[in-house]
Amino acid sequence: MKIAITGGGGMIGRKLAERLAKDGALGGRKITGITLYDVVPPVAPAGAKFPVQLLTGDMPAPGETDKLVADHPDVIFHLAAIVSGEAELEFDKGYRINFEGTHRLLESIRHAYTSAAQKPRLVFTSSIAVFGAPFPDKIPDEFQHTPLTSYGTQKAICELLLSDYTRKGFVDGIGIRLPTICVRPGKPNKAASGFFSNICREPLAGHEAVLPVGEDVRHWHASPRAAIGFLLHAATIDGETVGPRRNLSLPGLSVTVGEQIAALRRVAGEAVVKRIRREPDPFIQKIVSGWARDFDPKRALALGFKADASFDDIIHAHIEDELGGKVVA
Amino acid sequence: MKIAITGGGGMIGRKLAERLAKDGALGGRKITGITLYDVVPPVAPAGAKFPVQLLTGDMPAPGETDKLVADHPDVIFHLAAIVSGEAELEFDKGYRINFEGTHRLLESIRHAYTSAAQKPRLVFTSSIAVFGAPFPDKIPDEFQHTPLTSYGTQKAICELLLSDYTRKGFVDGIGIRLPTICVRPGKPNKAASGFFSNICREPLAGHEAVLPVGEDVRHWHASPRAAIGFLLHAATIDGETVGPRRNLSLPGLSVTVGEQIAALRRVAGEAVVKRIRREPDPFIQKIVSGWARDFDPKRALALGFKADASFDDIIHAHIEDELGGKVVA
Repeated sequence: MKIAITGGGGMIGRKLAERLAKDGALGGRKITGITLYDVVPPVAPAGAKFPVQLLTGDMPAPGETDKLVADHPDVIFHLAAIVSGEAELEFDKGYRINFEGTHRLLESIRHAYTSAAQKPRLVFTSSIAVFGAPFPDKIPDEFQHTPLTSYGTQKAICELLLSDYTRKGFVDGIGIRLPTICVRPGKPNKAASGFFSNICREPLAGHEAVLPVGEDVRHWHASPRAAIGFLLHAATIDGETVGPRRNLSLPGLSVTVGEQIAALRRVAGEAVVKRIRREPDPFIQKIVSGWARDFDPKRALALGFKADASFDDIIHAHIEDELGGKVVA
Repeated sequence: MKIAITGGGGMIGRKLAERLAKDGALGGRKITGITLYDVVPPVAPAGAKFPVQLLTGDMPAPGETDKLVADHPDVIFHLAAIVSGEAELEFDKGYRINFEGTHRLLESIRHAYTSAAQKPRLVFTSSIAVFGAPFPDKIPDEFQHTPLTSYGTQKAICELLLSDYTRKGFVDGIGIRLPTICVRPGKPNKAASGFFSNICREPLAGHEAVLPVGEDVRHWHASPRAAIGFLLHAATIDGETVGPRRNLSLPGLSVTVGEQIAALRRVAGEAVVKRIRREPDPFIQKIVSGWARDFDPKRALALGFKADASFDDIIHAHIEDELGGKVVA
């Protein structure tokens, strides 16, 4: 089977490509080729036993999404997006990349595949940003989408398109609302949600991290490892079982910052925890207070999506996958 | 104040223009001009004491929506759309008119008005088609939008855009999900929902009407008179009170076909009711079984939107407004 990944140069795209290269198969079918597409040059995964095509381009530009589907991939992971903060600051760019890019991809798929039976599975990474406060403490599957950001609006629009194009037989889409990815590898960034990862990743690497909110702040997390599991599962579940509602809130782990820190203490010790410096930031506190804290993702659980078991597990996974098993004590 | 109406040539657009011509004012402010826009030539309302501009055009074509906002109307009623059946049969046309037309209108407004304080109130007619079965018997305000038609998808997308453009200060939008309009004046049409109006309008005018479903079928109705009331109210309510969730399920009247017929009997007598011929149609029965039957529109009620009091009232209003008070006995 052939696979294409948009946003193939991003953190999740790279990890997904590496996992596919390692497995060599998806859903029991041998992988015969992968295309990685991104606005920056993507990197081929090490050890792939199949051809890897690397494409760089501006996804909403004319003809770009046609290139992506030219060799009729069986599964397309559509991860490419600009992030929430950038979409909020640059209104036109956000709609162009996050909405128009997805719309063009759907149109290219619609026209490039000749019969409904051949339509590819399109796995679309949506976001819990489709929900906007106020909402219940545990957001049920049936809750309305009233985003409070342009990013959330763009994701909600793409979810609607995904369902409609699937209903019409133009594609076989599954949209997954990923929890916040934690512990996110790499450098600290300026995203308002960055501290959830920073307070784990930086102390484990011997660096100080700033905590701008109180320990009672609750949030919804999934490890990068769980996220890759979600993507592979979404690529292979039976569309008939999913039914016409093609977008799912995925399971995650709802923990407070205090519970994150307690887990870090259990796994890595007090010396590591001491590297977290409290520096309350009312601006970030206000943003975070509007975010979803917990979900009741009955449908995704029934469909077999699996969350991390504990935040201790999330930290262990980070130490294994990113730090070669070693913590800076 | 200046007013523009897209879909100004349609049934609701005409009635709205006539009402505005009669009132001469909206929300206590004198009307100084109205623009009616449609794909077919609209007709100026009789007796208007202000200039009426009649524009004909293809709304999503380049520059069209710029023309609409060139004289900076204070209130824009955006009623233009192609109907559900046509949007389902003609996928590209549906997205072009119902989505792209609205998107271009929002963009034109965003760029034509220089400050947020001057932004016009945009009243957008959405639809209960944004909801798709299964849903609760009474759909609450918080229920998710999972449309099962392209028309419902296009309306749901426009709702999301309306909220986001309003949140950013580009427009002052209110979206209203109209119930099915009943009794719809004019000729019987082939819309699957047509029978709800046909079984009242045709017998009252001395003609036979076909009832393709059972009397236990329940549906959600508003008279044309109530719909005009909704539009005027939406044009003048305080946006701050509405808050960031700019789209509202409006109040309606939830009645069964049997209750419709009983009202017709009370108002017009058995001889009129006898003109309804039962001719069950499994195809229409199936379509109708997926439609919303009842709502719990708490927000719209709290904001002062008023439904018809009874189906008897709906029939009385039709006889007054469309039949000059006379029923064919």
